[in-house]
Amino acid sequence: MKLENVKIVMVETTHPGNIGAAARAMKNMGLSQLVLVNPKCPVGERAYARGSGANNVLDDRVTVESLPDAIKDSQIVVGTSARLRSLAWPELDPQSLAEKADAVTQAGKVAIVFGREHAGLTNDELQHCHYTVTIPSNPEFSSLNVASAIQVVSYELYKRTQQEEAGDAVVDAEPLADSAEMEGYFKHLEQVLVSTGFLDPDNPRQLMKRLRRLYQRAEPSKNEINILRGILTAVQKFRK
Amino acid sequence: MKLENVKIVMVETTHPGNIGAAARAMKNMGLSQLVLVNPKCPVGERAYARGSGANNVLDDRVTVESLPDAIKDSQIVVGTSARLRSLAWPELDPQSLAEKADAVTQAGKVAIVFGREHAGLTNDELQHCHYTVTIPSNPEFSSLNVASAIQVVSYELYKRTQQEEAGDAVVDAEPLADSAEMEGYFKHLEQVLVSTGFLDPDNPRQLMKRLRRLYQRAEPSKNEINILRGILTAVQKFRK
Repeated sequence: MKLENVKIVMVETTHPGNIGAAARAMKNMGLSQLVLVNPKCPVGERAYARGSGANNVLDDRVTVESLPDAIKDSQIVVGTSARLRSLAWPELDPQSLAEKADAVTQAGKVAIVFGREHAGLTNDELQHCHYTVTIPSNPEFSSLNVASAIQVVSYELYKRTQQEEAGDAVVDAEPLADSAEMEGYFKHLEQVLVSTGFLDPDNPRQLMKRLRRLYQRAEPSKNEINILRGILTAVQKFRK
Repeated sequence: MKLENVKIVMVETTHPGNIGAAARAMKNMGLSQLVLVNPKCPVGERAYARGSGANNVLDDRVTVESLPDAIKDSQIVVGTSARLRSLAWPELDPQSLAEKADAVTQAGKVAIVFGREHAGLTNDELQHCHYTVTIPSNPEFSSLNVASAIQVVSYELYKRTQQEEAGDAVVDAEPLADSAEMEGYFKHLEQVLVSTGFLDPDNPRQLMKRLRRLYQRAEPSKNEINILRGILTAVQKFRK
């Protein structure tokens, strides 16, 4: 995925806070190309405040008069819409949009177009789109804030870039205890439980089975097993 | 997934707009349980304006004094954090959180905890969490707006409900211990460790932190916590 080949297009946005929040969401997710089509508000203090440091995205925004101007260099144009349309466009969910963008951005540009806060995109504007993307949502309350919709779509794009790199899965965990260390712990535990009178030495099976399951589920590290054995030793000395 | 068994907990939020935006994001994604821990702002006109119709979520919000009050009925508590910690908690991404929540909410409750706008969650608050969830993001600009973070996490939860995965229903026989039972165990454990001389009462923090992580990772059932407490009681009687 080449995130620099994705642009976010906001059409006739009316609230500067939404433009700022969109810029922040984009920068959080590694995107930087913001295009405003005929914005209905100034991009000033309120937008920058909500941008919360995404100044470069706001500074570098491109403002154009009409949607065709915004998308003329894009191979794929995707419109967002919660409204039902009489003519159904090919519909993507955010995850499949990310897959498509991954392929297209290798050699071309993708524009994702977000409509007005209250009215979305017009049918004329949708005519310019190759696909629509629909964010799954509560059918009884389906209209997301425009910056939130940009957040969700951008998140799926960024997530896709991370899956590409997921060959080197990062688990900076401590080395796990091996089987012999676990057995050593269980033997030690059993001795202590018998000597404290908690465990019946003639019938230790059921209880030890439960405790084994519990500790095995936790997948203790070598260090943790050392701590647990230290506790058992302290209990053994406790009596004397 | 039983979305009604998921609660979103916001700790010491300072901007009413964020509370409103969170309520809207939740309702968009079929969530309804909002808990505010010691909010630093009124929940009035500005919150309702940004809520944009999610009035029921705001009306039904629960306000409490402290995080333990917010989570005491929850089997799994998940904290959100962008900050790096010296001791790593078991870390989930939003999608694997959704998988876990799907399983746990069949018979229990999940709390997802979001920290302050500028300071996140404190280490003390993270002590109450079994997991942290981290939203993949641009390492150079990683801090999402709190309502945007709630949007992304809620989206993954809702998306999970849309994926028909019949074979995946995890039915665990035993009910998990809730947060209050876990705390009761940790308190009892600390007493015993101090009285056996294993734990320095003047400096219990580091060791207890490690032990909390270990036991939280195991996700003990109520029965298992009863067994563990039985062992502690046997050790206490052992001396006499």
